[in-house]
Amino acid sequence: MSSYELFYWPTIQGRGEFVRLALEDAGASYLDVARVKGERVLYPFIHGKRGLGPGVRAFAPPFLRAGKLVIAQTANILLFLGPPLGLVPAGEPARLAAHQLQLTIADLVVEAHDTHHPVGSGLYYEEQKPESLRRARDFVASRLPAFLGYFEGELRRRKRFILGARASYVDLSLFQVIEGLGYAFPNAMRRLARRIPRLLELRDRVANRPRIARYLASERRLPFNEEDLFRDYPELDSRGPR
Amino acid sequence: MSSYELFYWPTIQGRGEFVRLALEDAGASYLDVARVKGERVLYPFIHGKRGLGPGVRAFAPPFLRAGKLVIAQTANILLFLGPPLGLVPAGEPARLAAHQLQLTIADLVVEAHDTHHPVGSGLYYEEQKPESLRRARDFVASRLPAFLGYFEGELRRRKRFILGARASYVDLSLFQVIEGLGYAFPNAMRRLARRIPRLLELRDRVANRPRIARYLASERRLPFNEEDLFRDYPELDSRGPR
Repeated sequence: MSSYELFYWPTIQGRGEFVRLALEDAGASYLDVARVKGERVLYPFIHGKRGLGPGVRAFAPPFLRAGKLVIAQTANILLFLGPPLGLVPAGEPARLAAHQLQLTIADLVVEAHDTHHPVGSGLYYEEQKPESLRRARDFVASRLPAFLGYFEGELRRRKRFILGARASYVDLSLFQVIEGLGYAFPNAMRRLARRIPRLLELRDRVANRPRIARYLASERRLPFNEEDLFRDYPELDSRGPR
Repeated sequence: MSSYELFYWPTIQGRGEFVRLALEDAGASYLDVARVKGERVLYPFIHGKRGLGPGVRAFAPPFLRAGKLVIAQTANILLFLGPPLGLVPAGEPARLAAHQLQLTIADLVVEAHDTHHPVGSGLYYEEQKPESLRRARDFVASRLPAFLGYFEGELRRRKRFILGARASYVDLSLFQVIEGLGYAFPNAMRRLARRIPRLLELRDRVANRPRIARYLASERRLPFNEEDLFRDYPELDSRGPR
């Protein structure tokens, strides 16, 4: 029996991927429930209509079952998983620092997502293209450099990983964000490359961790696609050959 | 000397208000630094350019100093403050449940904010009015009822407060959200009122807590205004007399 059950959309990386990467890096035993049973298994739980147990319900996937506990909100799941998976330094100050970084990654992820959904998540991209063009321009010109400059600065003041000498779930999430941004905004990321050398090194360092490398090469790693958080829409990227 | 120093914009409620409400309800001794020294005191810290100490820097206000600790991200600050302020039930499961709800409130707050800033937070509302009209229509029609229906459901399954018999920081934040939404979307909220009786009761219950009532009547409580998260733009609300 698996120690953990992850409930998340089975055809996208999305927010669930931040949890998958932590579980994979730790070699944890887990079941990616909807990948086995189909995404219909998630429908009853949307907007808290049902719960897996008597506790607080989830507003949206991902949520994780760990014994009697059911935990939702990506960053909250990682806050919980950090200590048992050995993916956060010991002690409350380090745990809060890791979580602060993770919440800032979550903010960046919302803004990256909203480049293709600035009007509403219930509408198709094709229904909000002019708005997307404007939002993406602002994102690429000002928000993306601000966020990445911030994370680069945090890496600069420490060693190898963002919280110090050892990898944490935050490093795995930074890998995922850099990969996703490189997929969605290859031109913008190429232009930023000189300014974020440590983030790019970190991305490679994480990709080469043995369990992560095996995961990325496996069929468990879903490909990026245009139903996902990060979407390859060339018109939203900086101009240039791709 | 104050136990806590809060660093946040001095002329808006914004995200800092969720922290202020927790500190006020607990009768904690705190200094609202920029309200005393002016907002310029915050400028050096934006986007992590400087830190208050050697730890992880803040990407944006609010951040809180508590002894040697400096903590950013609103929900993370509340995660930290919950136990010492007596504003969260004991034990890790309850602490995670509270935090999950708080992060869902944070998601709702982003979406409420983005009704007037769907293109970019660095642009004025007047530069993104057509986009705002579309986003607000989607928010009022689908996202607002989904979020509030979720919180109403969580209240329904418990007693008086969202985590049970005693008030937590989540209840204080729900008060703030309901107040803010009522300011920004009075027509939409009037229409939803029948479907969220427990949330409206909770709002009143929190407003009548002695320390909160004193705070709300004091000059420490800033008025809602059109530089803030929740803005009274009638064109973004549901139609009807106001």
